[in-house]
Amino acid sequence: MKEKDQAYDKHWMELALQLAGSAKGQTSPNPMVGAVAVKKGELIGSGAHLKAGTPHAEVHALQMAGDMAKGSTLYVTLEPCNHMGCTPPCTERIIQSGVKRVVIGSKDPDPRVSGEGIRRLQNAGIEVELGVLAEPCDRLNEAYFHHRRTGTPFVCLKAAITLDGKIATPTGDSRWVTGKAAREEVHRLRHQYDAILVGSKTVLNDHPRLTARVPGGGKNPLRVILDSYLRLPIETPVTDVETAPTWIFCTNHADQEKERILLQKGVRVIRTGNGPRVHLAEVFKRLGNEGVISVLAESGGELNASLLREGWVNKVIFFIAPKILGGKESPTAVEGDGPQRMGDAWALQDVSFRSFGEDLCLIGYPRRGKEEG
Amino acid sequence: MKEKDQAYDKHWMELALQLAGSAKGQTSPNPMVGAVAVKKGELIGSGAHLKAGTPHAEVHALQMAGDMAKGSTLYVTLEPCNHMGCTPPCTERIIQSGVKRVVIGSKDPDPRVSGEGIRRLQNAGIEVELGVLAEPCDRLNEAYFHHRRTGTPFVCLKAAITLDGKIATPTGDSRWVTGKAAREEVHRLRHQYDAILVGSKTVLNDHPRLTARVPGGGKNPLRVILDSYLRLPIETPVTDVETAPTWIFCTNHADQEKERILLQKGVRVIRTGNGPRVHLAEVFKRLGNEGVISVLAESGGELNASLLREGWVNKVIFFIAPKILGGKESPTAVEGDGPQRMGDAWALQDVSFRSFGEDLCLIGYPRRGKEEG
Repeated sequence: MKEKDQAYDKHWMELALQLAGSAKGQTSPNPMVGAVAVKKGELIGSGAHLKAGTPHAEVHALQMAGDMAKGSTLYVTLEPCNHMGCTPPCTERIIQSGVKRVVIGSKDPDPRVSGEGIRRLQNAGIEVELGVLAEPCDRLNEAYFHHRRTGTPFVCLKAAITLDGKIATPTGDSRWVTGKAAREEVHRLRHQYDAILVGSKTVLNDHPRLTARVPGGGKNPLRVILDSYLRLPIETPVTDVETAPTWIFCTNHADQEKERILLQKGVRVIRTGNGPRVHLAEVFKRLGNEGVISVLAESGGELNASLLREGWVNKVIFFIAPKILGGKESPTAVEGDGPQRMGDAWALQDVSFRSFGEDLCLIGYPRRGKEEG
Repeated sequence: MKEKDQAYDKHWMELALQLAGSAKGQTSPNPMVGAVAVKKGELIGSGAHLKAGTPHAEVHALQMAGDMAKGSTLYVTLEPCNHMGCTPPCTERIIQSGVKRVVIGSKDPDPRVSGEGIRRLQNAGIEVELGVLAEPCDRLNEAYFHHRRTGTPFVCLKAAITLDGKIATPTGDSRWVTGKAAREEVHRLRHQYDAILVGSKTVLNDHPRLTARVPGGGKNPLRVILDSYLRLPIETPVTDVETAPTWIFCTNHADQEKERILLQKGVRVIRTGNGPRVHLAEVFKRLGNEGVISVLAESGGELNASLLREGWVNKVIFFIAPKILGGKESPTAVEGDGPQRMGDAWALQDVSFRSFGEDLCLIGYPRRGKEEG
């Protein structure tokens, strides 16, 4: 393919990507997908997948194009499905529309069906181009892809720290580490993730609501609380399931009467064996099975250290406030035992930075991320 | 002045600034100064102050210009001196050269002589323009200006931390937190600062040399060690004064025999009273009196906390490595007691960022910096 054609394809795929990403937080457990139909250099159709159970992006774009779809090029951020789900296979719809060429961003992540959609289109005589803007297309659905590959949720560890690494004062005061713009971004993240994960200590200290307060509404995520001995108080914002569902994972040692009261309030309580602590592998297996694709861990240093040590963290987002707190006893974002050698730290890759007001945001991916659930 | 003229003046002042900054680390206790002579839009002379006791920037530029200086404009980053020091007053040299107009960046920081150079030039009929690129001109000599205002050195706190704020593992392993490019920058900083400050703990743990290992040579800074009880070993790189001078500040409780041995090795030992710890105010007053303009503090969390708490820190440079170490017992860059309220953290202002390889560098100025020594 000529360089000029590549730039042309990227241009339209960008639009499809933008459409896909605009539905962030809406589509789970389905992936975000965008589609754009183009003929003779002109836009003739566009669409995005909006919500599980509703039409796929390709269908919206072809609907909009109508008869013009014949002979057109369809740009779609993810390989079109070739199977009957809640909706009929997109490949058939594309073939029927008379589309001449299909340009695809990401391949289907499921190894069992990956490439099938492409083959079906090619067998019908449609020219298929794969991998245009593959990297941003893959990244957009990093959580969905991870869940499809491993069966467990994609875990993002989020922390708000001072420049010297502190998340609170020795007395636990953490309001606020970062400014308004960074805190608003955290609410947007909550809207985008299926679940928020915290330990009981965070609930006991901060009494958070763990809701997504974004302009115009937004979706409150599932609240997942790890509380080995059901120590959290009955009357605290997270046990109010009117605002959002709450699941508490505990051990078999937890009090049965407390469990009964929580169940009456509508909180789900899940026991994870006889260990001294909640069994993380069981938590994530259970969440994955129940269709929780993505988890935002907003916890303290001890739980964060366990998550990292056991290889559950797939991504980290650190908001760094330009201030110095100090304090030998001020807690930091990752505690636990920690390695003895600096060389054994968790290196991050694909690191990027963003600014939110005065605060800096660092996004990275631990190199030793667990890929098998 | 017209906008076009302002841009013209800024253009030439940029060059003068670049010349001035190119002598970073060479001029102390004098400021860095650059000068450019321009006539009919053409460069006719340029110079920088290279070293204390040698000609000022203006003199070099006018020397180069020769007879062409008559009727020219002279750009100089700092108000020309009007007094006899090691060299004759620059104002006289400028007047004799027949310069028509002088454009100045920074005003002389010393309130006793500030504006005198300008008045002398104006009285001689020379047009003077003040404050062109004043901010970068002031910043270039932030250390010199601070010393002139307060009598104490400008203190920059430097730290290399992991993303989660750790400077070492619980066993003290800190090699290396950052990558090669960031460590090279630290050597350039050492070249630029007059002195490096560390506590005895850093010497005992790391046995550092505290020299400036920059390509082509460079200047080793004075090594200042705070060691209340003279605990540091006799045989450690910093007591080898062949490479660089070393001053140790201790208290009156320190062992006299150890002091005697250190003195024999050529190390200077300075006692600062009967307190349990070295008296910081006395250290900085002493350093300031001895012509130490700038200090790079490369210490651990306890000393850093004391420096911040007592208001001695004027600037911070944090190198942040994109890795997570963890460890409740892993030391952080600022420890001590720390405030009880998050709102009492030291806010930084004029924050900027740079990249060194994979590492990020944050530079900022504490809002509660001490201005009076």
